[in-house]
Amino acid sequence: MTTLCKPATFYPEHLANADDIMTVIEICHPDSPYKQRAFEMIQNTEVKNRHLILPLTEVVKLGDFGARAARYKDAAIDMAETVAREAIDNAKLDKAEIDMVIATSCTGFMMPSLTAHLINRLDLPNETKQIPIAQLGCVAGASAIGRAFEYCQNRTNSNVLIVCVETSSLCFHKEANRLQDFISDALFADGAAAVVMRGDSQVPGLKLINNQSVTIKDTMPYIEYDITHQGFKFSLDKEVMHSIPHVAPYLQSFCRRSLSRDANQVDSTIFHTGGKRILDELVRCLSLEPEMVARSRACLAETGNTSSVAVIDVLKRTFDSARRGDASLLAAFGPGFTSEMSVGVWH
Amino acid sequence: MTTLCKPATFYPEHLANADDIMTVIEICHPDSPYKQRAFEMIQNTEVKNRHLILPLTEVVKLGDFGARAARYKDAAIDMAETVAREAIDNAKLDKAEIDMVIATSCTGFMMPSLTAHLINRLDLPNETKQIPIAQLGCVAGASAIGRAFEYCQNRTNSNVLIVCVETSSLCFHKEANRLQDFISDALFADGAAAVVMRGDSQVPGLKLINNQSVTIKDTMPYIEYDITHQGFKFSLDKEVMHSIPHVAPYLQSFCRRSLSRDANQVDSTIFHTGGKRILDELVRCLSLEPEMVARSRACLAETGNTSSVAVIDVLKRTFDSARRGDASLLAAFGPGFTSEMSVGVWH
Repeated sequence: MTTLCKPATFYPEHLANADDIMTVIEICHPDSPYKQRAFEMIQNTEVKNRHLILPLTEVVKLGDFGARAARYKDAAIDMAETVAREAIDNAKLDKAEIDMVIATSCTGFMMPSLTAHLINRLDLPNETKQIPIAQLGCVAGASAIGRAFEYCQNRTNSNVLIVCVETSSLCFHKEANRLQDFISDALFADGAAAVVMRGDSQVPGLKLINNQSVTIKDTMPYIEYDITHQGFKFSLDKEVMHSIPHVAPYLQSFCRRSLSRDANQVDSTIFHTGGKRILDELVRCLSLEPEMVARSRACLAETGNTSSVAVIDVLKRTFDSARRGDASLLAAFGPGFTSEMSVGVWH
Repeated sequence: MTTLCKPATFYPEHLANADDIMTVIEICHPDSPYKQRAFEMIQNTEVKNRHLILPLTEVVKLGDFGARAARYKDAAIDMAETVAREAIDNAKLDKAEIDMVIATSCTGFMMPSLTAHLINRLDLPNETKQIPIAQLGCVAGASAIGRAFEYCQNRTNSNVLIVCVETSSLCFHKEANRLQDFISDALFADGAAAVVMRGDSQVPGLKLINNQSVTIKDTMPYIEYDITHQGFKFSLDKEVMHSIPHVAPYLQSFCRRSLSRDANQVDSTIFHTGGKRILDELVRCLSLEPEMVARSRACLAETGNTSSVAVIDVLKRTFDSARRGDASLLAAFGPGFTSEMSVGVWH
């Protein structure tokens, strides 16, 4: 009887819209042959705003991996603590009742992990189990939900704190000048989200029924990191646009098996906001009513693609409109090409 | 009825002994005030040999994080595949019977993760769940065992593949000249290990009974990574030498609670080979017979500290001498300061 409680989100203060990032590209790459094409594509992303931990004027001056890691550590721990506290409150739990903390964050690196920092900052029990996840990119938020579900399934007294933190701005590479680099610069953004999974159903929320992971073979280059002296750098192959048709049959059969209904017959979807095309493809491949991805589109417009954070944000948006008994399909997509999916019923 | 099956290990071909690393320090830091002290300490480490993926002459020429990451990716995937295949064979399983793959590796970074690469290389089922862990350092091997145990506990038909891969040589920083840097250069080493946890007890092995995580608060600086344009760099505080007295009471009470006996009454210990002092302290704090850490000492002497790999190596060494009914305490220690412990009975 595991329950996803009400999530918390946090977005940092600095804002960047499409015009801002086009100005940056104009200044850094005035002679790029991809500039006009990039501008057209950026205006088509449906991203209205992105939140960043630094103003863009600082982002373009970021130094090497060491300097970025220092910025990352400060920002990530603070944001993580903020959302974690609120998520624990939302779950009507005391910090002493947390058994496990899963932290997902692919846009920076620290050791000891964010999970150890959270145990210290929140004064969680010394016996708290840790799963820090860095390499699952945009699928990591849904992956954390899957792992928490498997942990709580037969442990009704257990509670898992999930914290997702991303600082995509720290992966900005000023000299990167491929078309896909310009798109990444305009798409990815910063933020944090947290949610507690309770092993019981003592509070309202999304009671999970089933979950599944799917990794499609021979699709490794769809989403990769290039690694440089400046650290991690997004690398999106245009083939990623064709990823959803691989995954859709799994989503469909997963819904049928778990809920005895088609994906387009669930009451709401909670999809990671990978980008406009990903959402368009989900609508097309699963024959969804366009309204079913409205919350994901709103999340994309207001915050960009915040990687592992986004799916928890969309879960939060779903809380207010969900009615008891509604069934939801939650899914995210990331490097591998990997998809993580869960279904649950609101109570 | 979860069972740790017989592990597989792999060590790369290049060797470095204490003399070799002292020569490197002599050449790179001829005027260091710490040189003589470092040489005394290095001769006292009890590390006779270390295996590296590159000859030391190449290690000292390593470039920035990008160049290291490229080396890492090639070496890590190949080593991981080698040990994973052998571990699956040892478990008398077909690849199609693997449900989850946990990969631990803190000495390099790639996205998609090693777990996704293993799903492709080994042709594991598309539905294989992934837990890639980078930030748990030396405790990660035992942490993977803990997470696999929790997953398999109520899933007797499930099997988890655990793969640990480390390329510590790729974290060598030529210009690093603190005393602790010289000790790290002489202690950490490369290697890979894999083990399958079966949800049943159809093959001989260590049947796990219980597990626990412990993170000691306010000990974060004991083991950290400095992050530079060259990537990850070990940073050991000398306080880490005083870490075991914090953890020993947890190990003791964990043994009493799980096995109704003291830690020094188990039949064998399977300890991560952190270093000579860590093993000495375990003997002292838990009143162990010195012979009880002999396998960990042998692992340290023959392979150095291979971070997450070492505890799986010591588990493998324990396989040959374990008798049915013997009880073992398995534990490792890493950044946080975090310890992961399990107990089991051989069958």
